[in-house]
Amino acid sequence: MPERLIASLPTPAALVDLDRMEANLRRMQEYATRHGLGLRPHTKTHKTRWIAERQMELGARGLTVATATEAAALAPATDDLLLAYPTFGARARAAAESAARRTTLVALDSIDAVHALRQAVNDAGAGEVGVLVELDVGMRRCGVSGAEQAIAVAQACGDGVPYRGLMFYPGHIRDMLSVQDDALASLARTLDAVVDALGEADLAPEIVSGGSTPTAFRSHELPHQTEIRPGTYVFNDRTSAGLDACGLDDCAYTILATVISTAVAGQAVVDAGSKALSSDPIRAPALEGFGQLLGRPEVTVDRMSEEHGVLDLSLTDWRPRLGERVRIIPNHVCVSVNLQRELHGVRGEAVERSWRLDATGWGA
Amino acid sequence: MPERLIASLPTPAALVDLDRMEANLRRMQEYATRHGLGLRPHTKTHKTRWIAERQMELGARGLTVATATEAAALAPATDDLLLAYPTFGARARAAAESAARRTTLVALDSIDAVHALRQAVNDAGAGEVGVLVELDVGMRRCGVSGAEQAIAVAQACGDGVPYRGLMFYPGHIRDMLSVQDDALASLARTLDAVVDALGEADLAPEIVSGGSTPTAFRSHELPHQTEIRPGTYVFNDRTSAGLDACGLDDCAYTILATVISTAVAGQAVVDAGSKALSSDPIRAPALEGFGQLLGRPEVTVDRMSEEHGVLDLSLTDWRPRLGERVRIIPNHVCVSVNLQRELHGVRGEAVERSWRLDATGWGA
Repeated sequence: MPERLIASLPTPAALVDLDRMEANLRRMQEYATRHGLGLRPHTKTHKTRWIAERQMELGARGLTVATATEAAALAPATDDLLLAYPTFGARARAAAESAARRTTLVALDSIDAVHALRQAVNDAGAGEVGVLVELDVGMRRCGVSGAEQAIAVAQACGDGVPYRGLMFYPGHIRDMLSVQDDALASLARTLDAVVDALGEADLAPEIVSGGSTPTAFRSHELPHQTEIRPGTYVFNDRTSAGLDACGLDDCAYTILATVISTAVAGQAVVDAGSKALSSDPIRAPALEGFGQLLGRPEVTVDRMSEEHGVLDLSLTDWRPRLGERVRIIPNHVCVSVNLQRELHGVRGEAVERSWRLDATGWGA
Repeated sequence: MPERLIASLPTPAALVDLDRMEANLRRMQEYATRHGLGLRPHTKTHKTRWIAERQMELGARGLTVATATEAAALAPATDDLLLAYPTFGARARAAAESAARRTTLVALDSIDAVHALRQAVNDAGAGEVGVLVELDVGMRRCGVSGAEQAIAVAQACGDGVPYRGLMFYPGHIRDMLSVQDDALASLARTLDAVVDALGEADLAPEIVSGGSTPTAFRSHELPHQTEIRPGTYVFNDRTSAGLDACGLDDCAYTILATVISTAVAGQAVVDAGSKALSSDPIRAPALEGFGQLLGRPEVTVDRMSEEHGVLDLSLTDWRPRLGERVRIIPNHVCVSVNLQRELHGVRGEAVERSWRLDATGWGA
C-alpha cells in the first residue's frame, strides 16, 4: 500500500505523533516503577483499546475508566479495572459484568452507591466488585469529606462488594509542577489523618489510588499512595505544558487545520473551531486562548465558533496564505479527542495508522 | 412494541421535546412567511435528516450546512443547498458534487476560494455552484470588509461559479431582542452602502442571506435581506432564552442526568459534564454556569468536569436524593448535540423515536 501523507487528509483532522506518545507512555511508567507506585492510566483521554494495551505492555498495574461505554470497550485490555465513578444504573451493571472476567474496582462516596452496586453484583450473579472509598481532598466535586464518613461507607461494604481502600483525585492542584509544595504538604496531612483513622477502625486501606497528570511527577512525595491514575500524559496538551508537567515538545496530539479566511485584517481563520478543539479554557497561569500552533507557539487561537478558529497574528510576522495548513495543540486533549470520529497516528509526514475511537461519546 | 419511557434510558441522554420542537419550527416559518423572507435553516444545530425534511415541508426555501459531512448527509432533504463556508479541499468537492443534483450555493470571502471552487466544479464536470460573497458586518470572523473587496470577489466569479449575491452573519449582535435597535440600525446602514455600491458596479445581489437565532424575529427591520439562516431556533437553548429570542419553555432539548454524589455539602453532582453539555459559556447578559434545570430554573450547573456537573443548590430548598434524575437545558445546544451519539424524541414521559445523528463530528 502506498504511504499515506498527512497532506492527503481532509481537515480538520486529529493527529497523534506516535513517537512522542510512546515517549510519554515510557516516561510515566519509568517514573512509577522507579518509585514503587502502580500506574493505572485513565483511558478516558484516548478511548482506544490498542493504546490501553500498550500501556499494559509497558507495565501498567491496571486501567481506569469513567463510563460504562469505556468499561465495555477498554476492559478487555486488562485484568484489573477501576471504574472511578459512583455506581448507579448502567455503571453499576458495567462493573458487575466486568467482575465476572477480571479484578474490578469502583470508587464511590455514599452508602447508597454501595447498595446500588451490591444489587447489580447480585443481579449479575458472578464475581465481586471491590470498593475504593472516594475522599475529597480539596476539589469539592465528589468524595467523602473525612475519616468519619469514609469509615461509614467502608463499613457498608462487604457481601459481594468488599472494601479495598481509598481513592482521591488531586484535580484542585493546578499550580506549576515546581511550586506545588504547599498543596502537596496539605494533601499529605489529609492522607495521614484519614489513613490513620481508617487503621484505628480496622479498615487500613490496601489500595490508596491518587494522581493526576499535573501532579504526577511529584506523586512520590505523598505518603500512603499505592498507585496513580494520570490520563492526559499519554498525549499531553497545552494545559499540561503550561503547568510544566511536560514540555510543548511532549504534546503528541494536534488538530490539523486549513487557513480558510484572511479577509479580516490582523488575523487568519482556520477550519477548526469548538467542534474540533473544544471550548475548554486553558487551566494554567497567565495563558489565554484555545490552542497554540505546533512550531509557532507565539500564535494562539484567540476566538472560536463551531467550525472557525481565529488565529491571533499580533506576535508574529508570519502571514499564512489561504489553503495553508497548521497544527494546533489544544488546551485540553481529553475533550478534543472525545469530539473526533477518527485519530491518525503519524511519524514525520506519514500517516502510519488511523483508527476510530473504541468508546465514543460520553456517559452511561 | 411496548411504550418506552424516559425513565428507562441510561444517563446522560439527550432528549428532544417533539411538541416544543414542532412549535419552534412553525413559529420561525410563520414569521419568515409573514415578512416575505425565505427561511434557509442552518442544519448544523440538529445534523438530522428527518428534521431537515420537516423544515422543508413547513416551507423552508432551502437548507444551510457548514461542512462536507453535513452537505453529504443533509443535502438530500432539499433542492437548494447553501454551504456557508469558504471552499477549500473537501468542502469545495462537496459543493461541486451537490451541484450535479440541486441548486447549490457557497459563501466565501476571497478570490482564492473562488478559484478553488472553480477547480472543484471543473473536476466534477457537472452543474455550477453559485457564489454568495460573505460580508463582515461586525463579527470579525470571516467576510470581506466592504464594497470594494466584495466587488473584487464577485468579479472573480463566473465560468461555473456564477455570482449570486451577498451573505452576512450578525453573530456579533448579542443584545436582548428588545434592545437591538442600535445594532440593527448600524447593520442596516452597512447593508445599504454595500448593496448600493454593488448595484453601481452592475452586481446587484439577487440573494442577500442573513439572520441568526438571536436576531431572527427582528429580521424584517433590515433592508435588502431576501432570506434568513437561523439554526439554534429548532431546539433553542439557555443562551437563546437569556437573550429573549425565546422563552425557557421553548427550549426543546435537554440532557437527562442522574444525581450521583451529594457528599460535598451545598451541592449535588450529576453524571453530565462537559462531554455531554459542552463547556461553551453562556452568551447572554448577567447569567453564569453551564446549564439550568428544566422545571427548576433557579438551579444551575455551576462547574463541570468531563463526566461531572456540579449543581448549585444555594437558591433552592430542593435537596435531591442520590439516583434522582434531572433534565438540564444547556448553554449552547449546537455543540451539545454534536457530542451525542443519539437523540431521543419525547412526548410527556414517552420516548417516541430515537435516532443517530446523520452528520456526526465536525469538519471536512
